[in-house]
Amino acid sequence: MEQLEPGFDIPALPGWREDQVQTPALVVDLDALEANVARMAAAARAAGVALRPHGKMHKSADVARMQIAAGAVGLCCQKVSEAEAFVRAGVTDVLVTNQIVDPAKIDRLARLAGVAAVGVCVDALANVADLSAACQRHNTTLRVLVEVDTGQGRCGVETPEQAEALARAILAAPGLAFGGVQAYQGAMQHLATHAERRAAFEASQARLVPVLAALRAAGIDCPTVTGGGTGSWQFEAASGIWTELQCGSYAFMDADYGCIAGATGQRLDSEWQNALFVLAQVISVAAGRAVVDAGLKAMSGESGVPLVAGGLVCTGLSDEHATIADTDGRLRLGDRIRLVPGHCDPTVNLHDWMVATRGGVVQALWPVTARGKVF
Amino acid sequence: MEQLEPGFDIPALPGWREDQVQTPALVVDLDALEANVARMAAAARAAGVALRPHGKMHKSADVARMQIAAGAVGLCCQKVSEAEAFVRAGVTDVLVTNQIVDPAKIDRLARLAGVAAVGVCVDALANVADLSAACQRHNTTLRVLVEVDTGQGRCGVETPEQAEALARAILAAPGLAFGGVQAYQGAMQHLATHAERRAAFEASQARLVPVLAALRAAGIDCPTVTGGGTGSWQFEAASGIWTELQCGSYAFMDADYGCIAGATGQRLDSEWQNALFVLAQVISVAAGRAVVDAGLKAMSGESGVPLVAGGLVCTGLSDEHATIADTDGRLRLGDRIRLVPGHCDPTVNLHDWMVATRGGVVQALWPVTARGKVF
Repeated sequence: MEQLEPGFDIPALPGWREDQVQTPALVVDLDALEANVARMAAAARAAGVALRPHGKMHKSADVARMQIAAGAVGLCCQKVSEAEAFVRAGVTDVLVTNQIVDPAKIDRLARLAGVAAVGVCVDALANVADLSAACQRHNTTLRVLVEVDTGQGRCGVETPEQAEALARAILAAPGLAFGGVQAYQGAMQHLATHAERRAAFEASQARLVPVLAALRAAGIDCPTVTGGGTGSWQFEAASGIWTELQCGSYAFMDADYGCIAGATGQRLDSEWQNALFVLAQVISVAAGRAVVDAGLKAMSGESGVPLVAGGLVCTGLSDEHATIADTDGRLRLGDRIRLVPGHCDPTVNLHDWMVATRGGVVQALWPVTARGKVF
Repeated sequence: MEQLEPGFDIPALPGWREDQVQTPALVVDLDALEANVARMAAAARAAGVALRPHGKMHKSADVARMQIAAGAVGLCCQKVSEAEAFVRAGVTDVLVTNQIVDPAKIDRLARLAGVAAVGVCVDALANVADLSAACQRHNTTLRVLVEVDTGQGRCGVETPEQAEALARAILAAPGLAFGGVQAYQGAMQHLATHAERRAAFEASQARLVPVLAALRAAGIDCPTVTGGGTGSWQFEAASGIWTELQCGSYAFMDADYGCIAGATGQRLDSEWQNALFVLAQVISVAAGRAVVDAGLKAMSGESGVPLVAGGLVCTGLSDEHATIADTDGRLRLGDRIRLVPGHCDPTVNLHDWMVATRGGVVQALWPVTARGKVF
């Protein structure tokens, strides 16, 4: 392995000022992150629900440790390779909130259950048999949850009968422990107003209630009902039905979540602080505009252009550039500027490192532990 | 370094069938890639212009070697760290088609010029002085081109006077060699019809001609006029003005380029073959739809959803999933399916590996040499 050169192969070293950080870089503001982590931990405690934050967002063992220290029961992730990366980094309880159907991946997952508490979701009977066979091979136990489609139209079973059949199959399968129900409705998270999200939540709950009733009627104990996101968690937490929250974006926030309205009607980024920034440098200036060195390879663009610190506006985003309207000519060649990316999850996944700062000084360089772990 | 495990840390091994490749994975079809590379090389030769393909697209030393073997004079890239990665991998001539203003990056670039032929673009006088100072420190020579904004409204000077002043400054600067003019108009590349692109090209050419006339009038020899992309190269090649083409996407193609009309009115993916695919696996099926395991962390989404092999339609793309309409129920749990991503450049940058296949059999596993090289 070649030696990592500070400022080049890696974006910064502890002690550097933010204006020395090589760009584009992911900057994590520790004050903001710590405030967000503490706030959600307190909210979950107050509501009497467990918090299992989604690691697919931050992909960082350092952030995971901070969340677990604040009381999180473990971590969610989406991929077996993510789960492995987190377990290697010391996380002892992971839930893969996704279907794993490939034989090689199932084998890895069953093996991983020998060194950590590992859960996974199912929505097909054939999958239950495959998971069970792998656990028997490795003499391990996987916690298996039935995923219910509560309105997203993606994965998950659609009827109480299907859910009951799956739960019975899990209970009967050697090597598997029935973990309960996965009920996450992603499509409601970004609806613009609290009222819209409440209505979508109520529809989602209405799809879940008969499933839980069917399980109860069949005498099947449902240890966990898990779900909820940064846009909806208050509803799940107050429902008396969900027992665990899976919010992820709250820790970092992004422009997409920041612009929706919270319960008070204020923007959500007034409740949760922006803790994640793409630091960029001005590489070209012309009348009315500046161009910075961060584009689609430094932040994902499917949720629109980033917000720009200081009230400036990004007018264009291409592979390696963002163009910023600057009619007053405030930006100078070489200036560094913070951008709030549109969507935190795929943005984090682009980077090898996060630069953790406090008061404009680099405190730590965090690897993005599960960067690129797509398998 | 931990050992890479085939099928997990890496997506495949040579000899595997495509239906064994771990998903999501970038699959490169070698027959299609070779045909595209040969076709563009022949077209450039026939037009009497040099070809310097853009490495920011493929970020692959293996693809670069194939292009150079077919006659390319070198490679373009956008970042100093990309240029370094390509040079380390054996590419001997790189042009950074971008402004580099950070002192640490300028220093690296000037050092790199000691081991390879290295070019860079400028659009500001102060930058010329900084580049010159670094080259004097390292006793190297950088080839420096003046970037002209021919209509994109991003980087580049806007007037012949600015261009002439920059050229004079470069000529007068120790350690710098004046390389000519960078004239790439990115905003016209994806216009839907050939006629629209021709009109935009003519506007772009009209901005360039007075710049070249001013340089000539000043007695400044302009060794290279470089630019052109997959949507416009036929115009630059036939212009008698551009001496070098920088096309990148032609080698792999993508859904965005594939859907625009070529000179004959046919879709561009009838001229250039799709050589790049995201291989995905079905992980959930329900009435009317299937869900695969590739989302925004396996392909970028700012150019829309991917095309799906077999005429199916992708109806949704989230972080780790794509939803595919499947009214006939053709897809089964575990099936692998090829997707053509919307935008090749940021999609390639998400992956550590490309799986090079021929006739459905893995021939090689190529590292994405410059993946994540954003500095």
